Amino acid sequence: MDKREAISMSVIRRLPRYYRFLCDLLDSGIIRISSKELANRMGLTASQIRQDLNCFGGFGQQGYGYSVKNLKEQISSILGLDSKYKAILIGAGNLGKAVASHMCFNDRGFELIGIFDNNPSLIGTNINNLPVIDIKKLATFCSKYKPVMSILCVPKHVVDKLSGELYSLGIKNYWNFSHYDLSMKYDDVIVENVHLSDSLMTLCYRIKENS
Amino acid sequence: MDKREAISMSVIRRLPRYYRFLCDLLDSGIIRISSKELANRMGLTASQIRQDLNCFGGFGQQGYGYSVKNLKEQISSILGLDSKYKAILIGAGNLGKAVASHMCFNDRGFELIGIFDNNPSLIGTNINNLPVIDIKKLATFCSKYKPVMSILCVPKHVVDKLSGELYSLGIKNYWNFSHYDLSMKYDDVIVENVHLSDSLMTLCYRIKENS
Repeated sequence: MDKREAISMSVIRRLPRYYRFLCDLLDSGIIRISSKELANRMGLTASQIRQDLNCFGGFGQQGYGYSVKNLKEQISSILGLDSKYKAILIGAGNLGKAVASHMCFNDRGFELIGIFDNNPSLIGTNINNLPVIDIKKLATFCSKYKPVMSILCVPKHVVDKLSGELYSLGIKNYWNFSHYDLSMKYDDVIVENVHLSDSLMTLCYRIKENS
Repeated sequence: MDKREAISMSVIRRLPRYYRFLCDLLDSGIIRISSKELANRMGLTASQIRQDLNCFGGFGQQGYGYSVKNLKEQISSILGLDSKYKAILIGAGNLGKAVASHMCFNDRGFELIGIFDNNPSLIGTNINNLPVIDIKKLATFCSKYKPVMSILCVPKHVVDKLSGELYSLGIKNYWNFSHYDLSMKYDDVIVENVHLSDSLMTLCYRIKENS
Protein backbone atom coordinates (compact mmCIF):
# COMPACT_ATOMS: atom_id res chain seq x y z
CA MET A 1 0.00 0.00 0.00
CA ASP A 2 1.15 3.54 -0.77
CA LYS A 3 2.31 5.13 2.47
CA ARG A 4 0.13 8.22 1.82
CA GLU A 5 -3.00 6.09 1.51
CA ALA A 6 -2.54 4.80 5.03
CA ILE A 7 -2.55 8.20 6.69
CA SER A 8 -5.41 8.49 9.12
CA MET A 9 -7.92 11.32 9.02
CA SER A 10 -6.85 12.38 12.51
CA VAL A 11 -3.31 13.06 11.28
CA ILE A 12 -4.69 14.88 8.25
CA ARG A 13 -6.94 17.02 10.40
CA ARG A 14 -3.91 18.13 12.42
CA LEU A 15 -2.06 19.40 9.32
CA PRO A 16 -4.03 22.68 9.00
CA ARG A 17 -3.25 23.34 12.67
CA TYR A 18 0.49 22.79 12.08
CA TYR A 19 0.19 25.11 9.11
CA ARG A 20 -1.46 27.84 11.22
CA PHE A 21 1.16 27.61 13.94
CA LEU A 22 4.01 27.68 11.42
CA CYS A 23 2.54 30.79 9.74
CA ASP A 24 2.41 32.45 13.18
CA LEU A 25 5.99 31.46 13.97
CA LEU A 26 7.17 32.87 10.67
CA ASP A 27 5.24 36.11 11.34
CA SER A 28 7.04 36.35 14.70
CA GLY A 29 10.39 36.01 12.94
CA ILE A 30 11.18 32.51 14.21
CA ILE A 31 13.12 30.64 11.53
CA ARG A 32 13.97 27.34 13.23
CA ILE A 33 12.13 25.31 15.87
CA SER A 34 12.65 21.99 17.65
CA SER A 35 9.84 19.45 17.76
CA LYS A 36 9.86 19.91 21.55
CA GLU A 37 9.31 23.67 21.34
CA LEU A 38 6.66 23.29 18.62
CA ALA A 39 4.96 20.63 20.77
CA ASN A 40 4.90 22.98 23.79
CA ARG A 41 3.28 25.72 21.79
CA MET A 42 0.70 23.40 20.28
CA GLY A 43 -0.12 21.41 23.41
CA LEU A 44 1.12 18.19 21.81
CA THR A 45 4.10 15.93 22.52
CA ALA A 46 7.32 16.09 20.52
CA SER A 47 6.98 12.43 19.63
CA GLN A 48 3.45 12.96 18.26
CA ILE A 49 4.73 15.77 16.05
CA ARG A 50 7.61 13.64 14.76
CA GLN A 51 5.22 10.75 14.14
CA ASP A 52 2.72 12.97 12.31
CA LEU A 53 5.36 14.53 10.07
CA ASN A 54 7.00 11.18 9.43
CA CYS A 55 3.77 10.11 7.70
CA PHE A 56 4.79 12.51 4.94
CA GLY A 57 8.48 11.74 4.94
CA GLY A 58 9.68 13.83 7.92
CA PHE A 59 11.30 17.19 7.45
CA GLY A 60 13.54 17.73 10.47
CA GLN A 61 17.20 17.01 10.94
CA GLN A 62 18.11 15.23 14.17
CA GLY A 63 19.38 17.86 16.62
CA TYR A 64 18.67 20.81 14.32
CA GLY A 65 14.89 21.01 14.52
CA TYR A 66 12.72 22.19 11.67
CA SER A 67 13.18 25.12 9.34
CA VAL A 68 9.88 26.94 9.90
CA LYS A 69 9.68 28.27 6.35
CA ASN A 70 10.53 24.93 4.79
CA LEU A 71 8.11 22.97 6.95
CA LYS A 72 5.34 25.51 6.28
CA GLU A 73 5.92 25.19 2.53
CA GLN A 74 5.99 21.39 2.70
CA ILE A 75 2.72 21.25 4.62
CA SER A 76 1.17 23.77 2.26
CA SER A 77 2.19 21.52 -0.61
CA ILE A 78 0.85 18.37 1.10
CA LEU A 79 -2.47 20.13 1.72
CA GLY A 80 -2.49 21.44 -1.86
CA LEU A 81 -3.06 25.03 -0.77
CA ASP A 82 -1.95 26.44 -4.13
CA SER A 83 -4.57 24.38 -5.98
CA LYS A 84 -7.02 27.21 -6.80
CA TYR A 85 -9.94 24.80 -7.02
CA LYS A 86 -12.89 26.74 -8.40
CA ALA A 87 -15.65 27.10 -5.82
CA ILE A 88 -19.15 28.53 -5.75
CA LEU A 89 -21.21 29.52 -2.74
CA ILE A 90 -24.94 28.91 -2.51
CA GLY A 91 -26.90 31.11 -0.12
CA ALA A 92 -25.98 34.77 0.33
CA GLY A 93 -27.75 35.27 3.67
CA ASN A 94 -25.94 36.23 6.84
CA LEU A 95 -23.93 33.04 7.02
CA GLY A 96 -23.03 32.91 3.33
CA LYS A 97 -22.05 36.56 3.41
CA ALA A 98 -19.82 35.98 6.43
CA VAL A 99 -18.16 32.95 4.83
CA ALA A 100 -17.62 34.76 1.51
CA SER A 101 -16.18 37.87 3.17
CA HIS A 102 -14.31 36.28 6.03
CA MET A 103 -12.39 33.42 4.43
CA CYS A 104 -9.11 33.75 2.54
CA PHE A 105 -10.01 31.21 -0.11
CA ASN A 106 -6.93 31.86 -2.24
CA ASP A 107 -4.59 30.92 0.62
CA ARG A 108 -6.60 27.81 1.39
CA GLY A 109 -6.59 26.08 -1.98
CA PHE A 110 -9.71 27.58 -3.52
CA GLU A 111 -10.88 30.39 -5.73
CA LEU A 112 -14.41 31.65 -5.06
CA ILE A 113 -15.84 32.39 -8.51
CA GLY A 114 -19.59 32.71 -7.93
CA ILE A 115 -22.20 33.39 -5.26
CA PHE A 116 -25.82 32.33 -5.83
CA ASP A 117 -29.14 33.02 -4.18
CA ASN A 118 -32.83 33.00 -5.14
CA ASN A 119 -33.71 36.10 -3.11
CA PRO A 120 -34.42 39.05 -5.49
CA SER A 121 -33.25 41.55 -2.86
CA LEU A 122 -29.82 39.88 -2.74
CA ILE A 123 -29.34 39.15 -6.46
CA GLY A 124 -27.07 41.79 -7.98
CA THR A 125 -25.60 42.95 -4.65
CA ASN A 126 -21.84 42.55 -4.19
CA ILE A 127 -20.03 40.44 -1.63
CA ASN A 128 -16.26 40.64 -1.62
CA ASN A 129 -16.26 41.97 -5.20
CA LEU A 130 -18.48 39.17 -6.50
CA PRO A 131 -22.07 39.83 -7.59
CA VAL A 132 -24.78 37.58 -6.17
CA ILE A 133 -26.16 35.65 -9.15
CA ASP A 134 -29.70 34.33 -9.61
CA ILE A 135 -29.73 30.62 -8.74
CA LYS A 136 -31.65 30.05 -12.01
CA LYS A 137 -28.40 30.74 -13.84
CA LEU A 138 -26.52 28.01 -11.95
CA ALA A 139 -26.48 25.44 -14.77
CA THR A 140 -25.27 27.93 -17.40
CA PHE A 141 -22.60 29.22 -15.04
CA CYS A 142 -21.36 25.75 -14.13
CA SER A 143 -21.15 24.52 -17.71
CA LYS A 144 -19.13 27.63 -18.58
CA TYR A 145 -16.79 27.91 -15.56
CA LYS A 146 -16.77 24.32 -14.24
CA PRO A 147 -16.51 24.83 -10.49
CA VAL A 148 -15.51 21.69 -8.60
CA MET A 149 -16.59 22.65 -5.09
CA SER A 150 -19.73 24.15 -3.66
CA ILE A 151 -20.14 25.87 -0.31
CA LEU A 152 -23.62 25.27 1.05
CA CYS A 153 -24.97 28.07 3.25
CA VAL A 154 -28.65 27.31 2.78
CA PRO A 155 -31.18 25.58 5.04
CA LYS A 156 -31.36 21.82 5.08
CA HIS A 157 -34.54 21.49 3.00
CA VAL A 158 -33.00 23.63 0.25
CA VAL A 159 -29.94 21.38 0.06
CA ASP A 160 -32.21 18.36 -0.25
CA LYS A 161 -33.76 19.96 -3.36
CA LEU A 162 -30.57 21.51 -4.72
CA SER A 163 -28.06 18.73 -4.22
CA GLY A 164 -29.39 16.69 -7.16
CA GLU A 165 -28.80 19.61 -9.49
CA LEU A 166 -25.32 20.37 -8.13
CA TYR A 167 -24.37 16.71 -8.37
CA SER A 168 -25.63 16.42 -11.94
CA LEU A 169 -23.66 19.56 -12.82
CA GLY A 170 -20.53 17.65 -11.82
CA ILE A 171 -19.93 19.14 -8.38
CA LYS A 172 -18.77 16.36 -6.10
CA ASN A 173 -17.02 18.33 -3.36
CA TYR A 174 -18.86 20.27 -0.68
CA TRP A 175 -18.14 22.56 2.22
CA ASN A 176 -21.40 22.05 3.99
CA PHE A 177 -22.81 24.48 6.56
CA SER A 178 -26.32 23.05 6.28
CA HIS A 179 -27.23 20.09 8.46
CA TYR A 180 -28.13 17.99 5.45
CA ASP A 181 -26.19 14.74 5.31
CA LEU A 182 -24.90 14.69 1.74
CA SER A 183 -22.58 11.73 2.14
CA MET A 184 -25.57 9.55 3.02
CA LYS A 185 -27.22 10.48 -0.30
CA TYR A 186 -24.19 10.10 -2.60
CA ASP A 187 -21.32 7.78 -1.89
CA ASP A 188 -18.82 9.42 -4.25
CA VAL A 189 -18.86 12.93 -2.81
CA ILE A 190 -16.32 14.57 -0.54
CA VAL A 191 -17.99 16.58 2.18
CA GLU A 192 -16.56 18.66 4.97
CA ASN A 193 -19.39 19.45 7.33
CA VAL A 194 -19.35 22.46 9.63
CA HIS A 195 -21.78 21.94 12.48
CA LEU A 196 -21.55 25.14 14.47
CA SER A 197 -24.36 24.08 16.78
CA ASP A 198 -22.50 20.88 17.74
CA SER A 199 -19.62 22.99 18.92
CA LEU A 200 -21.99 25.24 20.90
CA MET A 201 -23.68 22.24 22.54
CA THR A 202 -20.32 20.73 23.46
CA LEU A 203 -19.39 24.02 25.13
CA CYS A 204 -22.66 23.91 27.06
CA TYR A 205 -21.89 20.40 28.30
CA ARG A 206 -18.38 21.37 29.37
CA ILE A 207 -19.61 24.44 31.28
CA LYS A 208 -22.28 22.35 32.98
CA GLU A 209 -19.82 19.60 33.98
CA ASN A 210 -17.38 22.24 35.28
CA SER A 211 -19.88 24.04 37.50
CA MET B 1 -13.72 7.74 40.01
CA ASP B 2 -17.16 9.06 39.06
CA LYS B 3 -18.25 7.31 35.88
CA ARG B 4 -19.12 10.65 34.26
CA GLU B 5 -15.59 11.96 34.85
CA ALA B 6 -14.15 9.16 32.81
CA ILE B 7 -16.13 9.95 29.66
CA SER B 8 -13.81 10.81 26.81
CA MET B 9 -14.11 14.00 24.78
CA SER B 10 -14.72 11.93 21.66
CA VAL B 11 -17.88 10.42 23.18
CA ILE B 12 -18.98 13.87 24.35
CA ARG B 13 -18.41 15.35 20.92
CA ARG B 14 -20.73 12.71 19.45
CA LEU B 15 -23.63 13.67 21.75
CA PRO B 16 -24.67 16.79 19.81
CA ARG B 17 -24.76 14.65 16.68
CA TYR B 18 -27.03 12.11 18.34
CA TYR B 19 -29.19 14.98 19.47
CA ARG B 20 -29.46 16.37 15.92
CA PHE B 21 -30.38 12.98 14.47
CA LEU B 22 -32.97 12.37 17.18
CA CYS B 23 -34.57 15.78 16.54
CA ASP B 24 -34.78 14.90 12.84
CA LEU B 25 -36.30 11.49 13.59
CA LEU B 26 -38.90 13.09 15.83
CA ASP B 27 -39.68 15.65 13.11
CA SER B 28 -40.23 12.76 10.68
CA GLY B 29 -42.69 11.18 13.10
CA ILE B 30 -40.46 8.24 14.10
CA ILE B 31 -41.12 7.39 17.74
CA ARG B 32 -38.97 4.31 18.29
CA ILE B 33 -35.67 3.21 16.77
CA SER B 34 -33.26 0.30 17.20
CA SER B 35 -29.57 0.97 17.77
CA LYS B 36 -28.97 -0.82 14.44
CA GLU B 37 -31.26 1.51 12.50
CA LEU B 38 -29.90 4.60 14.27
CA ALA B 39 -26.37 3.37 13.52
CA ASN B 40 -27.21 2.96 9.81
CA ARG B 41 -28.55 6.47 9.59
CA MET B 42 -25.56 7.93 11.40
CA GLY B 43 -22.85 5.90 9.71
CA LEU B 44 -21.82 4.29 13.01
CA THR B 45 -22.08 0.75 14.35
CA ALA B 46 -24.85 -0.36 16.69
CA SER B 47 -22.28 -1.42 19.26
CA GLN B 48 -20.64 2.01 19.22
CA ILE B 49 -24.01 3.64 19.87
CA ARG B 50 -24.78 1.26 22.73
CA GLN B 51 -21.30 1.86 24.17
CA ASP B 52 -21.62 5.65 23.89
CA LEU B 53 -25.04 5.74 25.53
CA ASN B 54 -23.98 3.30 28.23
CA CYS B 55 -21.48 5.93 29.40
CA PHE B 56 -24.50 7.84 30.63
CA GLY B 57 -26.46 4.89 31.93
CA GLY B 58 -28.00 3.51 28.70
CA PHE B 59 -31.54 4.27 27.68
CA GLY B 60 -32.70 1.37 25.50
CA GLN B 61 -34.51 -1.77 26.40
CA GLN B 62 -33.06 -4.97 24.92
CA GLY B 63 -35.15 -5.88 21.88
CA TYR B 64 -37.31 -2.75 22.00
CA GLY B 65 -34.86 -0.11 20.84
CA TYR B 66 -34.95 3.48 21.99
CA SER B 67 -37.88 5.81 22.46
CA VAL B 68 -36.80 8.71 20.23
CA LYS B 69 -38.48 11.35 22.38
CA ASN B 70 -37.11 9.96 25.61
CA LEU B 71 -33.57 9.56 24.28
CA LYS B 72 -33.64 13.07 22.83
CA GLU B 73 -34.73 14.48 26.19
CA GLN B 74 -32.11 12.48 28.08
CA ILE B 75 -29.32 13.70 25.77
CA SER B 76 -30.61 17.24 26.00
CA SER B 77 -30.45 16.95 29.77
CA ILE B 78 -26.92 15.44 29.71
CA LEU B 79 -25.77 18.28 27.48
CA GLY B 80 -27.56 20.80 29.70
CA LEU B 81 -29.41 22.39 26.78
CA ASP B 82 -31.97 24.07 29.04
CA SER B 83 -29.23 25.86 31.01
CA LYS B 84 -29.75 29.36 29.58
CA TYR B 85 -26.15 30.35 30.32
CA LYS B 86 -25.86 34.08 29.69
CA ALA B 87 -23.63 34.82 26.73
CA ILE B 88 -22.26 37.93 25.07
CA LEU B 89 -20.81 38.28 21.59
CA ILE B 90 -17.81 40.46 20.81
CA GLY B 91 -17.43 41.63 17.22
CA ALA B 92 -20.49 42.54 15.16
CA GLY B 93 -18.81 42.29 11.76
CA ASN B 94 -19.92 39.82 9.10
CA LEU B 95 -19.00 36.77 11.12
CA GLY B 96 -20.45 38.01 14.41
CA LYS B 97 -23.62 39.08 12.66
CA ALA B 98 -23.97 35.65 11.06
CA VAL B 99 -23.39 33.85 14.36
CA ALA B 100 -25.82 36.10 16.24
CA SER B 101 -28.56 35.75 13.61
CA HIS B 102 -27.99 32.17 12.56
CA MET B 103 -27.69 30.27 15.83
CA CYS B 104 -30.60 29.13 18.02
CA PHE B 105 -28.86 29.90 21.31
CA ASN B 106 -31.92 29.19 23.44
CA ASP B 107 -32.15 25.60 22.19
CA ARG B 108 -28.42 25.08 22.70
CA GLY B 109 -28.06 26.01 26.37
CA PHE B 110 -27.39 29.72 26.05
CA GLU B 111 -29.10 33.06 26.08
CA LEU B 112 -27.45 35.78 24.02
CA ILE B 113 -27.84 38.95 26.08
CA GLY B 114 -25.40 41.42 24.54
CA ILE B 115 -23.46 42.19 21.36
CA PHE B 116 -20.43 44.47 21.49
CA ASP B 117 -18.26 46.28 18.97
CA ASN B 118 -16.00 49.32 18.85
CA ASN B 119 -17.06 50.40 15.36
CA PRO B 120 -19.22 53.58 15.57
CA SER B 121 -21.09 52.62 12.41
CA LEU B 122 -22.21 49.35 14.02
CA ILE B 123 -22.96 50.58 17.55
CA GLY B 124 -26.70 51.08 17.96
CA THR B 125 -27.68 48.89 15.01
CA ASN B 126 -29.81 45.84 15.74
CA ILE B 127 -28.93 42.20 15.22
CA ASN B 128 -31.61 39.67 16.02
CA ASN B 129 -33.42 42.18 18.26
CA LEU B 130 -30.29 43.05 20.23
CA PRO B 131 -28.61 46.45 19.89
CA VAL B 132 -24.87 46.50 19.25
CA ILE B 133 -23.33 48.09 22.37
CA ASP B 134 -20.14 50.15 22.55
CA ILE B 135 -17.32 47.91 23.79
CA LYS B 136 -16.43 50.68 26.28
CA LYS B 137 -19.56 49.70 28.21
CA LEU B 138 -18.45 46.07 28.57
CA ALA B 139 -17.39 46.27 32.23
CA THR B 140 -20.59 48.03 33.36
CA PHE B 141 -22.71 45.55 31.40
CA CYS B 142 -20.90 42.51 32.80
CA SER B 143 -21.08 43.64 36.41
CA LYS B 144 -24.82 44.21 35.97
CA TYR B 145 -25.84 41.12 33.95
CA LYS B 146 -23.03 38.68 34.77
CA PRO B 147 -22.63 36.78 31.51
CA VAL B 148 -20.64 33.54 31.86
CA MET B 149 -19.71 32.92 28.24
CA SER B 150 -18.29 35.11 25.51
CA ILE B 151 -18.38 34.47 21.79
CA LEU B 152 -15.28 35.90 20.14
CA CYS B 153 -15.80 37.05 16.55
CA VAL B 154 -12.90 39.49 16.42
CA PRO B 155 -9.44 39.23 14.88
CA LYS B 156 -6.66 37.50 16.77
CA HIS B 157 -4.80 40.65 17.88
CA VAL B 158 -8.03 42.06 19.35
CA VAL B 159 -8.56 38.92 21.45
CA ASP B 160 -5.00 39.21 22.72
CA LYS B 161 -5.84 42.69 24.04
CA LEU B 162 -9.41 41.94 25.12
CA SER B 163 -9.03 38.55 26.79
CA GLY B 164 -7.45 40.02 29.92
CA GLU B 165 -10.46 42.27 30.43
CA LEU B 166 -12.99 39.50 29.77
CA TYR B 167 -11.14 37.17 32.12
CA SER B 168 -10.98 39.79 34.88
CA LEU B 169 -14.72 40.40 34.42
CA GLY B 170 -15.24 36.77 35.38
CA ILE B 171 -15.83 35.27 31.95
CA LYS B 172 -14.10 31.91 31.84
CA ASN B 173 -15.98 30.23 28.99
CA TYR B 174 -15.44 31.04 25.34
CA TRP B 175 -16.79 30.12 21.95
CA ASN B 176 -13.80 31.24 19.99
CA PHE B 177 -13.92 32.04 16.26
CA SER B 178 -10.63 33.95 16.37
CA HIS B 179 -7.42 32.00 15.93
CA TYR B 180 -6.09 33.19 19.26
CA ASP B 181 -5.16 30.32 21.57
CA LEU B 182 -6.89 31.27 24.82
CA SER B 183 -6.27 27.99 26.62
CA MET B 184 -2.52 28.55 26.30
CA LYS B 185 -2.88 31.89 28.12
CA TYR B 186 -5.22 30.80 30.94
CA ASP B 187 -5.36 27.29 32.30
CA ASP B 188 -8.77 27.57 33.95
CA VAL B 189 -10.83 28.58 30.94
CA ILE B 190 -13.12 26.42 28.84
CA VAL B 191 -12.72 27.14 25.15
CA GLU B 192 -14.45 25.69 22.14
CA ASN B 193 -12.51 26.82 19.10
CA VAL B 194 -14.08 27.05 15.68
CA HIS B 195 -11.39 26.98 13.03
CA LEU B 196 -13.28 27.36 9.77
CA SER B 197 -10.09 27.59 7.75
CA ASP B 198 -8.86 24.24 9.11
CA SER B 199 -11.98 22.62 7.73
CA LEU B 200 -11.47 24.34 4.36
CA MET B 201 -7.84 23.19 4.18
CA THR B 202 -8.82 19.64 5.05
CA LEU B 203 -11.34 19.72 2.19
CA CYS B 204 -8.59 20.93 -0.12
CA TYR B 205 -6.35 18.01 0.90
CA ARG B 206 -9.12 15.48 0.38
CA ILE B 207 -9.97 16.83 -3.09
CA LYS B 208 -6.30 16.79 -4.05
CA GLU B 209 -5.79 13.22 -2.82
CA ASN B 210 -8.94 12.12 -4.66
CA SER B 211 -8.00 13.59 -8.03
